[in-house]
Amino acid sequence: MRAAVMRGRTLAVEDVAAPIPGPGQVLVQTLACGICGSDLHMLQHAGTLAEATRASGAPFLVDFDQGIVMGHEFSGRVLALGPGAAGVTPGDVVVSMPVMLTPDGPVTVGYSNHYPGGYGERMVLLAAFCLKVPEGLDPRLAALTEPMAVGRHAVARSGIGPGEAAAVLGCGPIGLAVIAWLRLAGIQPIVAADFSPKRRELAARLGAGHVVDPRQEGAVEAWTRLDGQRPLVIFEAVGARGMIDAAMRAAPRLARLCVVGVCLETDEIWPIVGVNKELTVQFALGYTLEEFAGTLDTIASGELDVAPLITAEVGIAGVPDAFAALASPDEQVKILVRPELG
Amino acid sequence: MRAAVMRGRTLAVEDVAAPIPGPGQVLVQTLACGICGSDLHMLQHAGTLAEATRASGAPFLVDFDQGIVMGHEFSGRVLALGPGAAGVTPGDVVVSMPVMLTPDGPVTVGYSNHYPGGYGERMVLLAAFCLKVPEGLDPRLAALTEPMAVGRHAVARSGIGPGEAAAVLGCGPIGLAVIAWLRLAGIQPIVAADFSPKRRELAARLGAGHVVDPRQEGAVEAWTRLDGQRPLVIFEAVGARGMIDAAMRAAPRLARLCVVGVCLETDEIWPIVGVNKELTVQFALGYTLEEFAGTLDTIASGELDVAPLITAEVGIAGVPDAFAALASPDEQVKILVRPELG
Repeated sequence: MRAAVMRGRTLAVEDVAAPIPGPGQVLVQTLACGICGSDLHMLQHAGTLAEATRASGAPFLVDFDQGIVMGHEFSGRVLALGPGAAGVTPGDVVVSMPVMLTPDGPVTVGYSNHYPGGYGERMVLLAAFCLKVPEGLDPRLAALTEPMAVGRHAVARSGIGPGEAAAVLGCGPIGLAVIAWLRLAGIQPIVAADFSPKRRELAARLGAGHVVDPRQEGAVEAWTRLDGQRPLVIFEAVGARGMIDAAMRAAPRLARLCVVGVCLETDEIWPIVGVNKELTVQFALGYTLEEFAGTLDTIASGELDVAPLITAEVGIAGVPDAFAALASPDEQVKILVRPELG
Repeated sequence: MRAAVMRGRTLAVEDVAAPIPGPGQVLVQTLACGICGSDLHMLQHAGTLAEATRASGAPFLVDFDQGIVMGHEFSGRVLALGPGAAGVTPGDVVVSMPVMLTPDGPVTVGYSNHYPGGYGERMVLLAAFCLKVPEGLDPRLAALTEPMAVGRHAVARSGIGPGEAAAVLGCGPIGLAVIAWLRLAGIQPIVAADFSPKRRELAARLGAGHVVDPRQEGAVEAWTRLDGQRPLVIFEAVGARGMIDAAMRAAPRLARLCVVGVCLETDEIWPIVGVNKELTVQFALGYTLEEFAGTLDTIASGELDVAPLITAEVGIAGVPDAFAALASPDEQVKILVRPELG
């Protein structure tokens, strides 16, 4: 099959063997797959990611030189069932958490030498994790279930509730997902900050009542001006060095900081600032199966319109250029890979 | 009056003017005052503390050259009442939160050029904050209300509850206070770690079921061996650089880290480790009036025996040496200053 393959720090289109569905697995044809910021990190800092994963006490079994087909935000059409696979039938359009259960433990589809992700024409998925895309929902929108579920989970983990305010730092796909779920949770005000006018516009469209350019006014500063009373939850969705420290310094007393952006490098904080204000820093990752399924339903119902996030679509041949475009994210938000485009 | 006065980075016994009680204030004779780790920090890193306070958005109005009488863990005997002061009478033995309300905002008694703390013979306190020490409670034990309240507050802020386990890093007075309140909350197991055999012995006495020397086994490692099942709350009560990072790396998935040790310097963390494990880092400071009053009651009732924490008593003349002794805390835990000792 054709796939955009990462080897070391390069990404190139190759012909590779299509995966074969094992017991309980299904073979799917990739219909759409979003390019995630984590994949950009992976390409740039694979060694750091491996080290960090091990420092977190988990094994990291990927061999970077052997070739990886990334892509974990996907929808696909079921082509064939492996032995014992049940619950789906060929022809079904499905999404799935990008998780494969193996004798060595859970493996992320798209971050594995053995389970290629959606930057290739074919994937194998666990039948038990496949969710049928409801009739009438465009598979391209269904592919956004995964990043939207990340936002849903972060909002849930933050514990934000009625009467509390939110400031969202960074309006990439995850920041935008957070904003969308905050809106659905009825949170007001929602203040969002991003350097990019395009992303600020999307933030407003997805539910941020107030958007600021941090060169002019910080999100917390804007909250102070607009509200300043409600308990504040700050969502850090940039994932760059210094953002946690900056958020801690900007935070009001007793604020909660939910870190959903992923900074792979070590970072500096000033603990006494956290102590003086009694801050809470809550790190969030991933989602539960329920959150993932609920996100698909919310997109399908039309309550969560993810179409505006898709700023470009490319074939497999376009993946390397798409990565380059996302490295300077002024214009692009979510680029979808659609193998059928070539 | 005689007092141990901090000027710049030196501490020396001087004769200084006794404070005069203003409206709503009372003049007290210091009976006992604990030496706190924060005071050691203050003497070593006063400039950093000032900078950090300002970075936290609070004013810092202390002039280090003008002289400060530190000491904020005290008990005293009421000598005289300022205009309008009510609720106490001369002769009463009292404790108080070390907070003075001024037109410029709240000021900490003992961290102020105008409100000397308990390393001097006299203090002025706010009558409204004075709590009478119950009949029969030794004023020396009552002086430990303040540090014990810090531990109580940290345990409350951590949200730890039945069915959860605790690991306490550092068994100085604050770590020991945390252990004591964890025991009173019925938390099991409580694992505590400290390099000092003396402090480990006290940790066991105050309620840690398991004490470890981190050179041999980490507290989280010991919890893994002993329990490994219950959700874990880690209390960081060392307050040195690298402790937050070490705790984050050692922590199991979904652990909560309550930072009650005060590290004045900037510190390095690895955010991805927090993300991978979805950790929560909760910074804790101080206590509420209710927590302070409740702590006094708990000490008075005998439920919380603080006597073992007091490892030495000195007069004002002994304060500089006591600071030196606490800098290498193998033997000392809480040193009480008792002006009557000379």
